[in-house]
Amino acid sequence: MPLTLTPLQDIPLIRQGDNLADIVVNALQKNQITLENNDVFVIAQKIVSKAEGRAVNLAVVIPSQRANELARQIDKDARVVELILQESNEVLRTRPGTIIVEHKLGFVCANAGIDHSNVAELGDANEEWVLLLPTEPDRSAEKLRNEIKSITGKQIGILIIDSHGRAWRNGTVGIAIGLAGLPGLQDLRGQPDLFGFELRITQVGVADELAAAASLVMGQAAEGTPIVLVRGFPYQLREGSLKELIRPKEQDLFR
Amino acid sequence: MPLTLTPLQDIPLIRQGDNLADIVVNALQKNQITLENNDVFVIAQKIVSKAEGRAVNLAVVIPSQRANELARQIDKDARVVELILQESNEVLRTRPGTIIVEHKLGFVCANAGIDHSNVAELGDANEEWVLLLPTEPDRSAEKLRNEIKSITGKQIGILIIDSHGRAWRNGTVGIAIGLAGLPGLQDLRGQPDLFGFELRITQVGVADELAAAASLVMGQAAEGTPIVLVRGFPYQLREGSLKELIRPKEQDLFR
Repeated sequence: MPLTLTPLQDIPLIRQGDNLADIVVNALQKNQITLENNDVFVIAQKIVSKAEGRAVNLAVVIPSQRANELARQIDKDARVVELILQESNEVLRTRPGTIIVEHKLGFVCANAGIDHSNVAELGDANEEWVLLLPTEPDRSAEKLRNEIKSITGKQIGILIIDSHGRAWRNGTVGIAIGLAGLPGLQDLRGQPDLFGFELRITQVGVADELAAAASLVMGQAAEGTPIVLVRGFPYQLREGSLKELIRPKEQDLFR
Repeated sequence: MPLTLTPLQDIPLIRQGDNLADIVVNALQKNQITLENNDVFVIAQKIVSKAEGRAVNLAVVIPSQRANELARQIDKDARVVELILQESNEVLRTRPGTIIVEHKLGFVCANAGIDHSNVAELGDANEEWVLLLPTEPDRSAEKLRNEIKSITGKQIGILIIDSHGRAWRNGTVGIAIGLAGLPGLQDLRGQPDLFGFELRITQVGVADELAAAASLVMGQAAEGTPIVLVRGFPYQLREGSLKELIRPKEQDLFR
C-alpha cells in the first residue's frame, strides 16, 4: 500500500486560544477528505505553539547576567539568549548566532527551537515576538487526538514536528517533538531477515521518519500548509511518546 | 499535490552484475505503473552494493594489528573492524560493538555502514559475508538515472539510501548516501515568510527528508521492497550531489 502525504489547503492563521481539533476537522471538509481509521495528522509545531499562547514579546524579557555575557560572546540578541537558557537544561556548544542545547523536553537542538519568523502578526511593526515550543507536546498531541476522535469517531495518530539541524550534515530535517497514538520507535528485534538471520538494526525511529516525510510537503515558508494528512503509515498505531526517541544522556557519545 | 511513496513489489534478489535499470523498469511493468517526468526512485543501498559486487567473504580478510587491538577493546570481529577501518577516514568514537567513523564518502556513521544481514545467499552456510557501501554512490545513481532515461525517455531522480543512527536520538532513520537528478539541499534563503520577513532557516536537507520517507515504506526486514517510486516530490529536479549534505569538518562542533 502506498504512503500518501497530503498537505491540507486553506488552513487559517492560528491565534492563541484557537481549537486545533476544529481547525483540522474543518480542513478535512474544505479539502473534501473523509477521515479513516489509522490516518495520522502531522502538525507543524508553530501552530500548536501559537494556539497555546507560547509567543513572547521580546520587550518584556529581561536578560540575566549569564544571558548578557553569552549574547556578547556569540553576537545574539540577549533577550533571545535569555529565553533559550530558560527553555533548556544544558548548553552543549555555542558558535556565532547559535546555541546548541538540551531542551527541557529532552532533545538536543539549536536555540531551544525558538523561532523568529512568521510571528509578525502578533504585534505591531515595532514589536518583536518569538515563539517558544509547546510546554508538553505529547500532551498537546494527546489532547488533539482525543478531540478529533470524539468528533469523528476515528482512531488516528497525531505527530507534532519541528525542523532541526544535524551534527554532521547540512540542512534541517523535520523531526518529532510530540506524538500520540503512533509509535515513536519501532522495535524490529527478533524479526528475521530474508534468510532467517536475526536483524542487527533493531530499532527504527519511525516517528522521525514520518516527521521528515511530512516536512517535505509542508515546506518551510508555507505556514499555509501546517497540517499534513498521512494515509498508509505502515506500522500499527499504538500509544507512543517522544521519550522513546530521546537517547539517554549516559549513552550519548557526543557531548 | 500529495506526495506518494509506492514500494515496488516482486523485486527479485539482486546478484553481482545485475542491471538495476532493467530491474527497475521491469518492476514498473509488474506493478502496472507508468513512469512520469519528475518521478524519483529511492533505492536501498543494499541492492546497489550487491549489484556492484561489494560483498566481502570475511574468510579472506586479514586484520591489521590496529584492527585486532580495537576489536579486543570493543568486543567485535577483528575482520569486520579491519574492513571498517579500510572504509573510513577517521575514527570518532567507539563503544562496545560500535565504531563511529567518518566514512571515506564523507559522512559520519556507525561501523562504516557495513552490513551483516541479508547476505547469506552469497555463500554456503559456513561462510560469513558482509556488504560494503557502494564505492561512489553518486555515480551509481547517475548511471542508473541515465540508463532509465534512455529506456523510458523520462526525466527522473535517483536517491540511494541507507539507515543511520543519530547522535542524540534513538532509532535509525533513512538517509541519503548518493543521488542524481534531485537536490540534496534546498536553499530557501531570501524567500520571505508569510509576513515578508526573511526566513531564518535557509537550507533544508530535502534528500534526507525523502530518504527517511522512503525508508518508512521499505521497512527494515523487507529486502523484498528495496525500490520505492516517489511521485509529487515538491521541489524542482536538478543536478544534485551527496556533497551538498556533508557538513565540512571545520564547521563540525561535535568531533
